Amino acid sequence: MPVLSIQMLSGRTPEKKTEYIKALAETTVRVLGVPEHAVTIVVTEVEPTHWGTGLRTMAEVQAEKSGS
Amino acid sequence: MPVLSIQMLSGRTPEKKTEYIKALAETTVRVLGVPEHAVTIVVTEVEPTHWGTGLRTMAEVQAEKSGS
Amino acid sequence: MPVLSIQMLSGRTPEKKTEYIKALAETTVRVLGVPEHAVTIVVTEVEPTHWGTGLRTMAEVQAEKSGS
Amino acid sequence: MPVLSIQMLSGRTPEKKTEYIKALAETTVRVLGVPEHAVTIVVTEVEPTHWGTGLRTMAEVQAEKSGS
Amino acid sequence: MPVLSIQMLSGRTPEKKTEYIKALAETTVRVLGVPEHAVTIVVTEVEPTHWGTGLRTMAEVQAEKSGS
Amino acid sequence: MPVLSIQMLSGRTPEKKTEYIKALAETTVRVLGVPEHAVTIVVTEVEPTHWGTGLRTMAEVQAEKSGS
Repeated sequence: MPVLSIQMLSGRTPEKKTEYIKALAETTVRVLGVPEHAVTIVVTEVEPTHWGTGLRTMAEVQAEKSGS
Repeated sequence: MPVLSIQMLSGRTPEKKTEYIKALAETTVRVLGVPEHAVTIVVTEVEPTHWGTGLRTMAEVQAEKSGS
Repeated sequence: MPVLSIQMLSGRTPEKKTEYIKALAETTVRVLGVPEHAVTIVVTEVEPTHWGTGLRTMAEVQAEKSGS
Repeated sequence: MPVLSIQMLSGRTPEKKTEYIKALAETTVRVLGVPEHAVTIVVTEVEPTHWGTGLRTMAEVQAEKSGS
Repeated sequence: MPVLSIQMLSGRTPEKKTEYIKALAETTVRVLGVPEHAVTIVVTEVEPTHWGTGLRTMAEVQAEKSGS
Repeated sequence: MPVLSIQMLSGRTPEKKTEYIKALAETTVRVLGVPEHAVTIVVTEVEPTHWGTGLRTMAEVQAEKSGS
């Protein structure tokens, strides 16, 4: 019955996101021993401007990296 | 004081979503006996590509259904 | 496929919580037209000390009410 | 290690959202005494049509205010 | 930077929960290519009385199974 | 109308948690300009065994620190 709510930075390809959802579901079925249909996963993509890490947003962190 | 966070697949009409929010609020007031103003509801719509059920995304489930 | 995450103050009877879960599920099936088995509801009870409303916790609000 | 998930109505400027993320992080570091890098904040903006307060959506509340 | 919030039924051993957290982190690092320290996972265990599936709680589902 | 959901490691004093809730509410009112009563904050404390950072749980991280 597990429900996995994933929040991650936006910008990955559709193929990568699908691969990640499948991999999380497989890991859940394998480790917890639940039936496949019992696994629910919801992925939320977050813009770098809306993600804070420490005292900065990820948008600021990325701007500094690309600007150096 | 209840806070209801609803995650559901995208694609419903605005009218249906408004109806659903009202119905959830009415159910909450009626069953829990809280005052109306104490109910907060947040609906998040999720793309089928971002929703995993079992080992597949809902986008894959829908593609199989429409393709059969 | 909706997932409903409910946060509410602790203190209700088990019967009331079960009644609320059923009522939310019925409302969801009736309004959204989804099959029963597609509805997942998770209720989290929160202690008044851990719930903030305005600049106070609910524990403080309740203490003021009972103390007047 | 705290994770702060913020849901708020959409419509604020990027500058205001950045300021809010920083202020929440500073408050967390100051009060809890955790190192800066341990703070994660995710802001989700919600459309007024998707936010219920009492028996109405915020879209309805805003329409009444502007229409009076 | 992903944050994984896991809700699952209570009752698993501490060892199983630790194994699951590690497996989810490994899956995340491997598929998304993020550094280990960027992964945050929070597991919430939910009592069967607080988990609704369809029109019943998991406590009711489990009682029926064990009573048959 | 903001709703702040805070997940943090368990173990802080009640006084510290109350102080943190108030400080977050004050920050929200000051920066966003919303009325006090519009702010809702829910704090969830998470056991170190249920919190993963990188490939380890916080319980393991703490055990290593205290064991060195």
